[in-house]
Amino acid sequence: MLLAIPKGEFQERQQKFFHKLTEKNCDAAVIFSVTDIFYLTGFHFHPTERPIGLFIDPSQKVHLFLPALEHEHAEEYGIVDHVHSYPEYPGIKHPMEYLKELLLQYGFENKTVGYDSLGYGSSMGYRGQSIDQLISVKEFVSLKWVIEEMRYVKSDKEIELIKESCRWGNLAHRLLQKYTKAGLSEIEITSKASMEATMAMIETLGSEYKPHGQTAYAIFRGQIGPESAFPHAVTQNLVLRKGDTLVTGAAADVFGYKSELERTMFVEEVSNEQEKYFQHMYEAQDVALSAIKPGIPYSAVEATVQKYFKEAGITELTSHHTGHNIGLLGHEAPFFDLGDHTEIKPGMVVTVEPGIYVKGIGGFRHSDTVLVTDSGIEMLTYYPRDLNSLIC
Amino acid sequence: MLLAIPKGEFQERQQKFFHKLTEKNCDAAVIFSVTDIFYLTGFHFHPTERPIGLFIDPSQKVHLFLPALEHEHAEEYGIVDHVHSYPEYPGIKHPMEYLKELLLQYGFENKTVGYDSLGYGSSMGYRGQSIDQLISVKEFVSLKWVIEEMRYVKSDKEIELIKESCRWGNLAHRLLQKYTKAGLSEIEITSKASMEATMAMIETLGSEYKPHGQTAYAIFRGQIGPESAFPHAVTQNLVLRKGDTLVTGAAADVFGYKSELERTMFVEEVSNEQEKYFQHMYEAQDVALSAIKPGIPYSAVEATVQKYFKEAGITELTSHHTGHNIGLLGHEAPFFDLGDHTEIKPGMVVTVEPGIYVKGIGGFRHSDTVLVTDSGIEMLTYYPRDLNSLIC
Repeated sequence: MLLAIPKGEFQERQQKFFHKLTEKNCDAAVIFSVTDIFYLTGFHFHPTERPIGLFIDPSQKVHLFLPALEHEHAEEYGIVDHVHSYPEYPGIKHPMEYLKELLLQYGFENKTVGYDSLGYGSSMGYRGQSIDQLISVKEFVSLKWVIEEMRYVKSDKEIELIKESCRWGNLAHRLLQKYTKAGLSEIEITSKASMEATMAMIETLGSEYKPHGQTAYAIFRGQIGPESAFPHAVTQNLVLRKGDTLVTGAAADVFGYKSELERTMFVEEVSNEQEKYFQHMYEAQDVALSAIKPGIPYSAVEATVQKYFKEAGITELTSHHTGHNIGLLGHEAPFFDLGDHTEIKPGMVVTVEPGIYVKGIGGFRHSDTVLVTDSGIEMLTYYPRDLNSLIC
Repeated sequence: MLLAIPKGEFQERQQKFFHKLTEKNCDAAVIFSVTDIFYLTGFHFHPTERPIGLFIDPSQKVHLFLPALEHEHAEEYGIVDHVHSYPEYPGIKHPMEYLKELLLQYGFENKTVGYDSLGYGSSMGYRGQSIDQLISVKEFVSLKWVIEEMRYVKSDKEIELIKESCRWGNLAHRLLQKYTKAGLSEIEITSKASMEATMAMIETLGSEYKPHGQTAYAIFRGQIGPESAFPHAVTQNLVLRKGDTLVTGAAADVFGYKSELERTMFVEEVSNEQEKYFQHMYEAQDVALSAIKPGIPYSAVEATVQKYFKEAGITELTSHHTGHNIGLLGHEAPFFDLGDHTEIKPGMVVTVEPGIYVKGIGGFRHSDTVLVTDSGIEMLTYYPRDLNSLIC
């Protein structure tokens, strides 16, 4: 099995993007999104202060624009027609000056030019002009969301990679549960489980496996005992204690594709109160899983889950929506949110993770990765969900 | 030793920022940079599709604005006067509508308002209005770079945290070198070294250690054999072979503070050609280390290094500048670059990493983290640099 998106699929994505440009009456385009550049070209890179961009010229040739230190790297891995580079950032001559010359050379003047953002964005000390300050064209047209929307529905190959991610996340989680024990530090447990799963993963998959992200891992991310009541806690190097509520996470990146598996677990014993909230969370997840089907809006799923919480009288213990798409990023639009009326379609891959948070007691959230099918869903993660299986 | 920035230092940073606002004639400010929010408030969080911002009202009170799921987390850890939250993104009412109401409530109308960026930026499916579309004020004034520039010179406490990072990077690197062997996969070696260093780190530092990032790690990042000729290669799960040139990296995040240690190593044997390029790189790094002193521009250091490369006749084998500041981000401005004329000052922490890249043979780059002192430099990383110490 090839653990990568084949060249032909990248070329199909480019063809599809050209059609979108035509639909938007664009003759050409400039793209700065790191994720979308990978999606269209297969070139995976570390973004830094040095701007990287992609442009499509009016004859539909695909160009990468990047710093000299990425030139040969891009020629080796990027599925594009041309690679152009500038010496360095900030440089004696600013990278955007080089881009300007290229855009003029390839006839962007007097053309309608699509863009995802008007300039390169980086927190790593980058500053520079926006493209509308660089050149004058007939019109600049925002393409924000066009490529993101292309990424909504996954191809068979993408689903295969996400399934591979689920497989190794499952192993990492098994090991996490095996090593979870009162008196140990969260980092000790997660490091051991992550390393062991990673070793099994690379032994199994061999050199064909390109993570383009993280190899197999399992984490608590600080969601331990009372701190698990913070839905997005951060690792605090806590020591586990008997009776702690835990919220976990496990996955692996496979050629950049992600999945999400989270479980609520308990150290040795479960109080009646912990059990009560666990059962509510469990049922809310069931409600969500049953509600998902193609043809309805994302918001309808969220409404169903919120109805469940309201009837159970625990709305005030909830603080986030039920889930989101997943793929090249850990969170992608659309969202299972009251304000998101995007239609659910077959081939979308979503997380299902309603949560309950009780001060002093902890957080209660499972997350599963689910494929929308023609008639309903297929669970891609497959770790036990029931209480008895989750007491360590 | 406290492995964190103390509360008082966060408050001093806020006071210093208030002075900057006064200098810029700003009555109030809105900040969206994740790094700068942590720098000013100590609130470490996972940015997602849900906008998070910081605002300073005209009476110099500090407010965090964030999603409900972060509310109690921010109250626990954020050093601010007020925490405000909105229900969810996208939500029935957009988060920016809540922000608008707060800004009006705290008297932003008719005021001069500083900002770092006009809106929240996220690739995770966020879209929303910019603040100048939300409210009309007397004037919006860009504060881009103001907080970044505050971060240029490190405090004694920050330097202590960076030194702690260097210590554990050094251990991780020792283990990496110990486990480096022909026939093993890069991921096997780096996972083993990283886990063992992490275990030693948490056993030593205990629960006072908050990574706010990655625990101790050592990596190759795909810079193995011919692939090391790509300065920014990515992990490809390669198997090491006798004679390979390797470029490594090792560090640990300590309360969010980073360091950088990189070494050029060789598997078992070194050819004459490899040795020649290694020695050029070694000398170029010496040249850079000798050139750094307070009072001169960053560009002067780069010019000295480029002079060395030119005289050696190997300019065409170089493709990036000599280094950059480091702290809360892996790359921070200023840069040792011909185009960066910022003055070097005592207290700045920089990486020194001139590199040579030879197609088919590999990459040659050491990186050390260095503190600028009143009279010159103090090396913060301390791993052996000579060829004989780096043959595995």
